[in-house]
Parts: sequence; C-alpha cells; structure tokens
Amino acid sequence: MNTISRLKSEELRGIGEDMYRMIVELYPICRSITGNGYRQTMRRIQEIIPISIQEVPSGTEVFDWTIPKEWNIRDAYVKGPSGKKVIDFNQHNLHVMQYSVPVHLKMPLQELKHHLYSLPDHPEWIPYRTSYYKENWGFCLSQKQLDCLEEGEYEVVIDSSLEDGHLTYGEYRIQGESDEEVLFSCHCCHPSLCNDNLSGIALTSRLAGILTGLSLRYSYRFLFIPGAIGSITWLSKNEEVASRIKHGLVVTGVGDSGAFHYKKSRRGDAEIDRVVQYVLKHSGKSYQVRDFSPYGYDERQYCSPGFNLPVGSLTRTPHGSYPQYHTSADNLEFVSADALVDSLSIYIEVVRVLENNRHYQNLNPKCEVRLGKRGLYRTIGGEIGQPLNEFALLWVLNLSDGDHSLLDIAERSGLAFMTILQSAQALLQHQLLQECST
Amino acid sequence: MNTISRLKSEELRGIGEDMYRMIVELYPICRSITGNGYRQTMRRIQEIIPISIQEVPSGTEVFDWTIPKEWNIRDAYVKGPSGKKVIDFNQHNLHVMQYSVPVHLKMPLQELKHHLYSLPDHPEWIPYRTSYYKENWGFCLSQKQLDCLEEGEYEVVIDSSLEDGHLTYGEYRIQGESDEEVLFSCHCCHPSLCNDNLSGIALTSRLAGILTGLSLRYSYRFLFIPGAIGSITWLSKNEEVASRIKHGLVVTGVGDSGAFHYKKSRRGDAEIDRVVQYVLKHSGKSYQVRDFSPYGYDERQYCSPGFNLPVGSLTRTPHGSYPQYHTSADNLEFVSADALVDSLSIYIEVVRVLENNRHYQNLNPKCEVRLGKRGLYRTIGGEIGQPLNEFALLWVLNLSDGDHSLLDIAERSGLAFMTILQSAQALLQHQLLQECST
Amino acid sequence: MNTISRLKSEELRGIGEDMYRMIVELYPICRSITGNGYRQTMRRIQEIIPISIQEVPSGTEVFDWTIPKEWNIRDAYVKGPSGKKVIDFNQHNLHVMQYSVPVHLKMPLQELKHHLYSLPDHPEWIPYRTSYYKENWGFCLSQKQLDCLEEGEYEVVIDSSLEDGHLTYGEYRIQGESDEEVLFSCHCCHPSLCNDNLSGIALTSRLAGILTGLSLRYSYRFLFIPGAIGSITWLSKNEEVASRIKHGLVVTGVGDSGAFHYKKSRRGDAEIDRVVQYVLKHSGKSYQVRDFSPYGYDERQYCSPGFNLPVGSLTRTPHGSYPQYHTSADNLEFVSADALVDSLSIYIEVVRVLENNRHYQNLNPKCEVRLGKRGLYRTIGGEIGQPLNEFALLWVLNLSDGDHSLLDIAERSGLAFMTILQSAQALLQHQLLQECST
Repeated sequence: MNTISRLKSEELRGIGEDMYRMIVELYPICRSITGNGYRQTMRRIQEIIPISIQEVPSGTEVFDWTIPKEWNIRDAYVKGPSGKKVIDFNQHNLHVMQYSVPVHLKMPLQELKHHLYSLPDHPEWIPYRTSYYKENWGFCLSQKQLDCLEEGEYEVVIDSSLEDGHLTYGEYRIQGESDEEVLFSCHCCHPSLCNDNLSGIALTSRLAGILTGLSLRYSYRFLFIPGAIGSITWLSKNEEVASRIKHGLVVTGVGDSGAFHYKKSRRGDAEIDRVVQYVLKHSGKSYQVRDFSPYGYDERQYCSPGFNLPVGSLTRTPHGSYPQYHTSADNLEFVSADALVDSLSIYIEVVRVLENNRHYQNLNPKCEVRLGKRGLYRTIGGEIGQPLNEFALLWVLNLSDGDHSLLDIAERSGLAFMTILQSAQALLQHQLLQECST
Repeated sequence: MNTISRLKSEELRGIGEDMYRMIVELYPICRSITGNGYRQTMRRIQEIIPISIQEVPSGTEVFDWTIPKEWNIRDAYVKGPSGKKVIDFNQHNLHVMQYSVPVHLKMPLQELKHHLYSLPDHPEWIPYRTSYYKENWGFCLSQKQLDCLEEGEYEVVIDSSLEDGHLTYGEYRIQGESDEEVLFSCHCCHPSLCNDNLSGIALTSRLAGILTGLSLRYSYRFLFIPGAIGSITWLSKNEEVASRIKHGLVVTGVGDSGAFHYKKSRRGDAEIDRVVQYVLKHSGKSYQVRDFSPYGYDERQYCSPGFNLPVGSLTRTPHGSYPQYHTSADNLEFVSADALVDSLSIYIEVVRVLENNRHYQNLNPKCEVRLGKRGLYRTIGGEIGQPLNEFALLWVLNLSDGDHSLLDIAERSGLAFMTILQSAQALLQHQLLQECST
Repeated sequence: MNTISRLKSEELRGIGEDMYRMIVELYPICRSITGNGYRQTMRRIQEIIPISIQEVPSGTEVFDWTIPKEWNIRDAYVKGPSGKKVIDFNQHNLHVMQYSVPVHLKMPLQELKHHLYSLPDHPEWIPYRTSYYKENWGFCLSQKQLDCLEEGEYEVVIDSSLEDGHLTYGEYRIQGESDEEVLFSCHCCHPSLCNDNLSGIALTSRLAGILTGLSLRYSYRFLFIPGAIGSITWLSKNEEVASRIKHGLVVTGVGDSGAFHYKKSRRGDAEIDRVVQYVLKHSGKSYQVRDFSPYGYDERQYCSPGFNLPVGSLTRTPHGSYPQYHTSADNLEFVSADALVDSLSIYIEVVRVLENNRHYQNLNPKCEVRLGKRGLYRTIGGEIGQPLNEFALLWVLNLSDGDHSLLDIAERSGLAFMTILQSAQALLQHQLLQECST
C-alpha cells in the first residue's frame, strides 16, 4: 500500500477546484448547531468519505451542558407598513438570528429595532448572530437596509420550530498500525459563511479522502461537529478514545488568502506544536505562531484542563482578525481554490512528518560505522564538499540514541526532515538502525 | 474584617506627610548599632505600632559574631589653637566616627589629620564613618572645614562610653490565618541620614500600621534592627521562625525621587521576586531589576546559603549609586512625602498580590463550564468584542489545574492581576473553583 | 611541586619558536595513517615527552572497522612523452594520492587524467587526496602543471607497498591525584600539511611537556593517532579508560593566524564546553563557538552516542573554512610561532581552570562570617569603594553551598576566575571552606 511519503504533489492538482465546488454547493444551506441543514451537510460529506452520522437526543447531559432543542426554520420575513417584505430569510440565511423562536407579531418600528442587528462600520454587510441558550428572536440586516426602514407598523414572521430532537454530528475513522490517534476536528454549524467554516469542512473531507487507503502508522479520526456543544458532546461520549489522541488540529479558516497562523496547544511544546511550526518554517510561506488562549474554536474544549489534549489550530487569518469574519462578506469571493489547496498541502506535510517522526537506536553506537563498505559513502577522501546525504547519515547515526526523534535530528542538523528521513530509511535497510519501541 | 484588596487609595492620602514628619523627628537622634539613640528611636515607632523591644547582652555569641559593647556618646569636639571649637558633635551627629572610644588629648594638626575624614569631591558634605569592630576614634568634617584648619595644637574631646550593655532591636508580628510569614526588615542604626534609612523606618512602621486589623492570609513580621549585626542576631535567635518565612523584603532607601530598584533574592525566581517584578511592571513607574549580590543590606544575611530565604530588597535609587549616600547630604531635603507615599503604595500592592496569589482547582475540568446559565456570560453570540472579564473567567478556568497560581494566570493571559482575582472570586462564589491546599 | 596556577607566562617565551622548529623538522616526512613516516614522527615527539608507541596489526577488528594494510612509499613519478619527470613525489609528498597501490604503467594522457587531481580555482596549489579503503592510485598536481601536459604516452611509476603490517600511534599519560582523566587528542596522519595537523602535534607535545612534573588534580592523557581509524582503534582497546575521561579536546589547526573556534562536545553543556568558552571570553581574543556536528576530526568518534564523551575541539580557523586547507598552501608560511604560542596559552588557561574548578562548602553557612577578625576585611566602614577581593570573598562564601563550582561563581559574579580562586584559597586557609567530595 502507498504511504503518505510517496504522495505526489501532482495528485493535489484539481483538488483545489473540488474543494471550492463543495463550498459552492454547501453555501446556500442554512446550518445551525442542530437541524436538517446540518444533516444535509453531513450527507454531502458522505459523497467523499463514509462518515457515520451520530444523533444525540435533546436533553442529554454532556458534562456541564445539555443538548439543546433542535432548531429548524422554513421561512422568515419582516413586512413593512406598505406590506412589502423588507427583510427576507429567502434572500440570505444570515437575516435570521440563529435559534430564533417562532413568532408572528405586529409592532411599530421602534419596538422592532430591539430585535434588529446591523454593522454600522460595514453598511453593506449582514452580521451573523445566534441565541442558542436563551430563547429570543431577531433579524440581521445591512445598515443600509436598516436606514431605509420607515416609521409605521411591521409584521414579523418567523416560521421556525424549536423542539426536542437531536444534535447531529459526523465522524470518520481510519485504522492505522497503531490505535493511537491523530484528530482533525472542524465545526460545521455555521450557515452561509465560507471561510468560517465551509473551508474547514472541504479541507477536512478531502484530507480524510486522501489518507483513506494509505498505509498509516497512526489511526486518524475526523470530526464534523457543531462548534463548542459538538466537541463537548463528543468528548463526553468518548473519554476513553480521547486518551488515545496523540496529536490533533482544529481545522478552520483555511480558504482565505491570508498568512498561516498556528495556535499552539495548551501544552505549548507538544509534538504537534513542534511539527506544525517545523512544516511552516520550511514551507517558504509567511506564517505566525500564537500561544494557546482559552477562546477560539473547539481547541477550548480539547485543551480544557481535564483533557489537556495536544490539539492546536492551524488556520490562515485567525477568527476575529478579518472584518469579513461572521458577516455576509465571508462569502464565495472571500475564499479560493488556490488558498484551499495551499492549506491542504501544509496539512498533508504535517501528516507526513507525524507519520515518520520516529525514534531510532543506532545499532553500532560506539564510533562511527564504516559507511564505505556498505556503499553509503564516497571513496576518495580529502575533498571539502561532501554530498548532502552523507551529513544526514552521520547526523542520524550520531543522534539515534533513543532520545532524539527524526524531527529533533532535522532541527539540530538544520537539514530537511525528508533528507533525514531518507537517510534513516537507508540506514534501516542496512540494519544499522532499529526503531525504538515507545 | 477588611482585607488588603478592599483598601482604598484615598486612605493613603496624608500618610506621606505623616511619614515625612516622623523622619523629621528622628533625624536629630544619634543612632548607632547599639545605645540610647537606638532605644529612643524604637520608642518613637511604638507610637505607631506596639513593637516589642529586645535587648541582647554584649558578649552574646551570634553565629560567627559577638554582640559588641554598647556605645553611647554625650559630647565631642575639637578645639583649635585659638581655643575655639572647630568641630562640634552638637552641630551634626556625623562629625564623630561611630564607636569612637573616649579620648581627651592634645596634638598638633598633622597628628590630628590621621583621625579626620572628609570628601574632597563634595567639599560641603560631611562623610559618615564607623569603626564598630576595631577600637579607634575619629572626626568627620567637610573638606571646606578641613581646609580652614591652621597649624598648631588641637584639643580633642570625645565624651563617649564603650561598655558592656546591650544590642537593642524592635520586632512586631501580626498573626494571620497561616503561620507562614512575610518579613519586612529595615535597619535603624544610622544617625542623621534620611533616605538610608529613616525612610525605611517610616515606611515599615506605616505599612505595619495599615496591615494591623486587616484580615490577612499570612502572618507578618516587621524587624527594626541594626544593620548586619541585627539580622545576624535575629536569625541566630529565631532559626525555627526563619524557616516559616515564605516571602520577605529589606526596606531601605524609599524616600528619594529616583526610580525603583528591585534586587532579587539569592534564589532569583522566588514568588516574592516574581510578585515585585509584576507589580513594578504594571505600576507605570520606571524601575530596574538587579540580580542578587552578596553585598548591600541585610539580604546578605537572610540570603546566606544556610538560610537562603526568599528575601529581596525593594528600594528607590540603590545604596552607593547616589553621591549623597552616607553623607550629610542625605538630609531632609533629599527625601519627600510624595516619594514615601509612592513607595508605600508599591509595597501595599506587593502585599495585595502576595495575599491573593493562590492556586485553585477547576471543579469541572472537562470541557468548559456553561457560564451563561450562571449569569456569568453574555447571551447573544457571534460578536467579536467580548467584555474583558469573560476572557479572565476563561483563563482562570483553563489554567486552574493546581499548577498555576493566579499570578501565573495573570502573566500568561496578559490580564491584570486584579482582573484575574475578581474572576476567580466570582467563580469561587459559583462553586466552580476550590482552593488547593499547599 | 609546582601547580599550573603558578606557571609564569614568561616560561612560555621561546616555546613558540620551539614549536615552529618542530613543524619545520616534521614537514618533509611523508606520513599517512600507517607506515614508517608515522613511526619517524612518533620518535621525534619522544624527544620532548616519553610517549609509548603502540603497534596494532593489520586485520585487527576495531568496532565496525578493520585495521588496514600498512602503506609505505619509496618513490613515485610520472614521465612525459619526452622522458622527463613531469610529476615527482620527491618534489612534494602531496603529489601522490595516499594509499596508492604500486603501479608501473604506460598510458596516453587521456587515460592518465582519470588519475590526476588538481584545483582549478587555485592553479598553483597541489591538492591532498587519499584512498585508504578502496585500492586505487593517483597523482595530485597544480592546475598549472596539469595545463602544461602534452598529448602523448606517459610512464607512471609508484614504488609503494601496501601489505600486512601495523597501525602505529603514540600515547602519553601523566598520573595526577585522581584517576579521572583529561584527554588531548591530535591526529598525526597528514603528510606535508602544517596547520592540519603539525600545529596540533607541536602544541600537544609541548603542553604535555609543561604539565609533566606539575602537581596535578587530574590525570592527563595525550594521544598522537591517525585520524578516524586511530581514535576508533584507541577507543576499541580502551573502553574502560574512556569511561574515566572527564574532559577532552581535539587539538588541530592551532598554528594559523585566524580567530579561535570552539566546537562544543555533543553534550553541549559539559564542563569543558563551559570552561573553554569562559577562557575565550576572558582572553580578549576574537573567537566563535559552534555547536557539535558529527563531522570534523576525532570528536566524531569520542562523541559517538555509545561513548558521548565530553570532548570538544579548540582550533583557530576551522577545517574546510580556509582555502589552503588540504592543499600544498597549508605550508610553513601558513603557520607561525606567535600563533602557536598564543594557542598554547589558551590551552594552558583551560587546564588552569579545569584543575581549579572545584566545589566548596561554606563551613559557616548561616549568615556571613566575620572576615575582619581574620584579617580578611577593611576595618573602617562606610566607604563606597571596597577593594575587589572583598566582593570575591563574599561571592565565594555566599555561593559555596556545594552546588556551585568556582566557575559558576566567577560567571555569576562577573569576577575573573583567578580572583575567585584566590579568594577561595584564602578562605580555605582560614578553615572557612572545605572541598566537596564529588
């Protein structure tokens, strides 16, 4: 079977367009943390990978939380004094505050305004608002729309349901040699927002698809969950599985054109933290690294002190740092096939390093081995410039004492991880190394 | 009972003037490491706080040292060839070298000069000199005075006594919840020198007064001792108490207008070191931090390797770094009520952080707790700007694993200690945290 | 008996010229990793110190290696079409590739060129080439010579022998108080190359001569070995001795005029690493420090993971970093008596610090001791400027808790090691310190 190391970069061509197309298809669906839009999204992912779809009943207790009622919406609008619809859910999913309770009311503009949300600084954009845990209703609209509303009586209709039902999430697992797992988690609860997080859904699905069928060292788990309540639910139902997670990333905001940002795990020095930083450093791309903070996405839950999992988050521009964030401007123009495939290639490189970052023991630790008699060495001495892989062979032999991983050796030698890996593989073939059991 | 956290800054108003007045009263007294001037000073402190006055007999062995004879002086002068007093102890305490033995002699100027000390670089100032451990006598005078002395015979009179007696020191202790102690130590052995260390006496007395009657976590000990021999004596008689000192500061040079200087304890990373640096960093005032060195004040003894106590020294301009140091120019003009109260406020802030720098355990460590249902959280999601204390709540919950103190959390989050403290208190009230036993 | 601390710098005068003369004498000898040139070199070293000469038979297995056949060469030349010698071993040892097998052949220029080595970038210089482990033959010549060769038939003669014999090396040991050893290792296998490594031979011999007869704390071992195979052989035969090596340096490239370079041991924080860096830092000379890498000289073997000895390498310009390296331009003009004696003085200083870098225990650890009553202190207090050695006395007393070596104290205090050492010696004389057993 093929391994991640043999994956050719040509195979990524075209995947950018595939990912973008998936975003285009998913964009019109009104997702929330529960409901039929969520289920529809999971079914679209099943076209790529056979995720299992979990349904958890409303009212289920998950740690300090309770699975909320299921929310579904059919229609919603506001009619002005003239009887014309001035806000219409059919125009944009963001027009309705998520989890708005059903209403059918008449009221003057002044009263209505208590339920309207706009962005004065970005008068063309519709904001994204939710009220998951307090019963409420509201409409979001552009400041321009708001400014046009005349005094008079308005009719408000929200044809939604908020009833006992289920929280839905998708899960997919690839069994590797080891039961130790690598986790990729993305939230799927946002309605028509592209970077946050249709980009994460598209990338995670494709990454899962690529890894399927490869010969893998680790097992891989992919979670397609509603933000916060979803990871809380999954952790609550999978405490024992969670203890096998050795590395993880929260996948979000990977479709915009900004520089990469890596947010470290709470531990700060976990292997995933070192690997992602190593890959970004050697990617030739601009990037920034941030320390962990207990706000953001589902790393909040994975890195809560009772779990403290080695889970970071690898994004492009971080949430909240771009004005389009959580507005209607996070749309199909804000993301691109090129950015998506660029992000995917970094994720693949991270997997490549994780898969190969083993510890070896030099079987001839006393003095150097004679590389020459094994055909691993030049034969005429005295020249200054030695071919690169000789240095790599010497570094691997010198540092393979069980304490240094191949990443340690790459970092200390300044040589590329793949060069170090190739040397280690050559030495393994000559019975000069053996892998350390961990 | 009130706590240090509730102390209002208004309550400090007026205390600057009080401290300055105390310095004015103590300035004329001729103190030395023993003697009646020292006792008189202790009695003045008793007007503020009920210190106990200890008397240790001359000849008592204290580690490698012996309590010296008690020195008292009534009068001293030098009469010139004309019979006029050219140097007069009654004009300034510094005119006589401390511990000068009684003499009544006549001698020519050339012989007298072997016993005269002046400062050629500062011709108006009288230096401060001592000879505690070698019997000697001498006079200090300004270079200007010295230059005026004519050839001829001089009469030297020192009406002092150097006899078996006692070493005196003052001690005051406030019992807190815990027997673990915070030490404030100031030397009181200098005669008419204001910054070094009447400023320390004034500040330490007032700080003790303020803490008296508050509800305190730690017990507090205040030492009013002669420099070096005093701390050696106290440590020699209180080895078991010393082992309970968890934090300490040597208080000196806190009345001048210079920037703050913190000299770290020998350990360098003790909690007191981190707390003082944190307070100075957030004070908005200019300051410098210096590593420990085994010279300076009584931190030399507290930080000797057999004790190695976590005791630093928080001063303004450090000893030896201002020209007025140990001269008659360290006078009432060199210190000010404003500088004194400014120093006091930093000391109070240090106590405030020490008192509150506890370790807590998050009682719901798996995933986040639902702040909303406890009224600790906004209810409408999706906005970028969250009020500050929500971040603080999340930081406290995330890092309260028993390993992180509130100061650790403040430093890691970048939020103010008081903001972190308020969050911790709110979480405690909601039974979301419990204090870790230490 | 004298100690290294009492060695006067005057005694080094003249040694520079001695070392340079030794290089002049050894330069014409054709050394290789085995053979009579090597033996002749060892005998010259015996004129300075009584090294024992070891002979290890060809075919002996040493770890992963086998002692090669012994190579000796009597004559070698290439005659051109005109019958004139165009390359002549008698003109320069470097003209023949080391370990060239005996040949007597005729061949056209085109075929001959497959066996010729030159340096196009340095047309006047002859390169240095070897083929120890693959049977081959070759000639090295300047590019200028090569360019003059006409088409036609050439006669090639190499009158060498490659037969079972021995590998030779020299070893010298000085017994000190302790059986723990300091190792100085230099390779002696290069023919007419001055900096690499006649300079190392000259320095190591003289250093050994100077240490002989001194009263020493450590035992000292000096190895005069062929590069790589020599250290492998020695380690293979001396595993138990190797475990007693506490500090070591590979001595090479110490005769050129470049800045010093210290290459750290694989450990990176061994005492030898700290000592050499300290000495260089305080030498007033320019220097650089490099991390360990598993290529270079015999530190490759000493620092292989199965030994991981604390052995660094102290050179001037490092190997491969000067164009003259491994060419005929590494000649008698490239090294100088001044550079040699300058390097020697650094090596001596390193030994001086190693010999004296002990841990002491303050016997009066509680509070300061009274220096005054022991005549170690000024008697009149109150002055700002204290003589330097008082600070040193206080530092030594404060940090002599068994955890800090004198080098630690020098580094933390910022005072010179010798000042700290003198203070420690004064305190020892007064029974205020005792040495810690290690």
